[in-house]
Amino acid sequence: MHASAVYNFAAGPGVMPQEVLLEAQRELLDCRRSGMSILEMPFTGEAFQDIADQARRDLRELVGLPPNYRVLFLPGGASTQFSLLPMNLLPPDGRADYVDSGHWSRKAIAEARRYVPVNVAASGARYGYRRLPCRRHWRLDPGAGYCHITSNETADGLAYHRLPDTRGVPLVADMTSDFLSRPLDIERFGVIYAGAQKNIGPAGLTLVIIRDDLLRAAWPACPTAFSYRVQVDSDNRFNTPPTQAIYLAGLVFRWLRSQGGLGAMAARNRRKSEALYAFIDASDFYACAQRVADRSRMNVCFHLAVPSLTAEFVAQARRQGLLNLQGHAAVGGLRASLYNAMPEAGVEALIAFMAAFAARHGRSRRRCG
Amino acid sequence: MHASAVYNFAAGPGVMPQEVLLEAQRELLDCRRSGMSILEMPFTGEAFQDIADQARRDLRELVGLPPNYRVLFLPGGASTQFSLLPMNLLPPDGRADYVDSGHWSRKAIAEARRYVPVNVAASGARYGYRRLPCRRHWRLDPGAGYCHITSNETADGLAYHRLPDTRGVPLVADMTSDFLSRPLDIERFGVIYAGAQKNIGPAGLTLVIIRDDLLRAAWPACPTAFSYRVQVDSDNRFNTPPTQAIYLAGLVFRWLRSQGGLGAMAARNRRKSEALYAFIDASDFYACAQRVADRSRMNVCFHLAVPSLTAEFVAQARRQGLLNLQGHAAVGGLRASLYNAMPEAGVEALIAFMAAFAARHGRSRRRCG
Repeated sequence: MHASAVYNFAAGPGVMPQEVLLEAQRELLDCRRSGMSILEMPFTGEAFQDIADQARRDLRELVGLPPNYRVLFLPGGASTQFSLLPMNLLPPDGRADYVDSGHWSRKAIAEARRYVPVNVAASGARYGYRRLPCRRHWRLDPGAGYCHITSNETADGLAYHRLPDTRGVPLVADMTSDFLSRPLDIERFGVIYAGAQKNIGPAGLTLVIIRDDLLRAAWPACPTAFSYRVQVDSDNRFNTPPTQAIYLAGLVFRWLRSQGGLGAMAARNRRKSEALYAFIDASDFYACAQRVADRSRMNVCFHLAVPSLTAEFVAQARRQGLLNLQGHAAVGGLRASLYNAMPEAGVEALIAFMAAFAARHGRSRRRCG
Repeated sequence: MHASAVYNFAAGPGVMPQEVLLEAQRELLDCRRSGMSILEMPFTGEAFQDIADQARRDLRELVGLPPNYRVLFLPGGASTQFSLLPMNLLPPDGRADYVDSGHWSRKAIAEARRYVPVNVAASGARYGYRRLPCRRHWRLDPGAGYCHITSNETADGLAYHRLPDTRGVPLVADMTSDFLSRPLDIERFGVIYAGAQKNIGPAGLTLVIIRDDLLRAAWPACPTAFSYRVQVDSDNRFNTPPTQAIYLAGLVFRWLRSQGGLGAMAARNRRKSEALYAFIDASDFYACAQRVADRSRMNVCFHLAVPSLTAEFVAQARRQGLLNLQGHAAVGGLRASLYNAMPEAGVEALIAFMAAFAARHGRSRRRCG
């Protein structure tokens, strides 16, 4: 039933490329002619090492990673990294800048504050998180060990389309929901981390990319298996890694390369999101509160002019195979997540449904002018 | 090629039940008629919650878990828990007893020592880890917050066949390599934890079972997502859990129930290991150094009378579809891991190969007398 008629707009775990699922399915009982399922492969053996090495190479190639950046595949999600970042990147008396752009940066800040003093360099609170905090008002701390941003706010539908200038302070970015969705000016970053369950692979895996010079001994309280330094020094094999998750991420990396890489993804993602935003902006039945320049291309957040119809919208969409359109519980409204694996046909189907739903509920008129 | 001719004796990740792999394969693109792969399911949705609830219920039923024990599915492996146990179970000025029975308990001790004073209540070092430390010589600390054992030493081939009396101090057991291999006298335990990649499911998931009265606020340094208390209070949904790993564990739990539960597993595991130990003990070509009463039923460690043939043994076995028989790198020799999913036919095939290998190398004679 996973047919062309079903489109999954979940914010993550969310849609995966069909080709990846089919390949994973085909070789689930016998991975790369090893006689073993990927689930059964010892992580110390040659078969798995080939898989992990290939995944790492494909990722480096996709992102254009310079040799002084290291890649770690760690268990857990971005929430775990919220705690691990200060313990790995700062001295115990260090401090950090965080920019508060929405739900997920607030989570990152709350957790970091358990470890170090945090300077909130800027906040979107005064705008109700409908835009990114204005650059002119950022108050960076020149003594901060790093400056943390959330490059795409999954719940609020905001994204950085230009990177901030952090004046020499290493930029650390939670890219959970937009990593691999567009090319990166990688050398602008000190650390990138991303939970896998959006554009990378299964929940329970986090990718950490770190520039060599930021590696230091982690705090004594940091679990050894979560020390970036220890994992880099042991070639990410200090303990058993999440092997199948790495395998699946590797399939996604290969799929991305076959699709033309991050440039091709960015073009497709721009077309998808622009089509949906244009439809919403032209309607008086749907609305999007986010400032146009800061809108996410991954998570299109919108709402109905008649909010009482929201549950009905979600239910009717679901019956038509358009799944998981409810907004984040903390934000409400509606949200369509358009990750790499969402085909353009999915967006077309969503727009057609939205037009019909608006027509049925009597306010389908386009705005005049 | 994952045919009856291939048997995987890896210590983990290791063999999974064929039926589980087939079911996972069948529904990989459409899980429980949701229209989504398990990899694509939002963890907050009903479809995944049903899967997680069912897994939890099946596990409780299998183990016979009383209501005052909680079950957590956490990302990462047992090595992560080595750090998290003291931070979750002890006050910051607490201390703990650990019994050193081999490779994995030494790892647990080294990591715990980074957090609290550890009393090594007993050690198998003086026996070269060829037997468990003699009960009469255990020196328990009545003020310890818990007493930690490694119920099955995967690398050394040792296992507790009777639980120790810890005199009121809560017993904490790393059961990574024998959880679900036999019925448990669960009320003897305060905490059980187990990395999934042996008898539960994929690498990257750890199961933690904890008695209510041991839940307390974790240390301030403990990442919130790894606080047992926080995860219990949020119904294991503080952050995105490793959804597919939980799904696969659930399939394994159902498989175990269909096979007759842990009693049936224990009987089968006893037959498998006894057949192999009996063959080894009767041979003068193979030997097992472990004390008979302490031998593991999961990991049969043995060696050749002519150690220089070890690599040749592993290579020939591999060519015959008997995979991953090398011992742990820290211990050497040979090891056949006989987890729940290893069929009795696999052990018969291994014994037949071992007999033929011994015959080819000229020392196939059974011991006289």
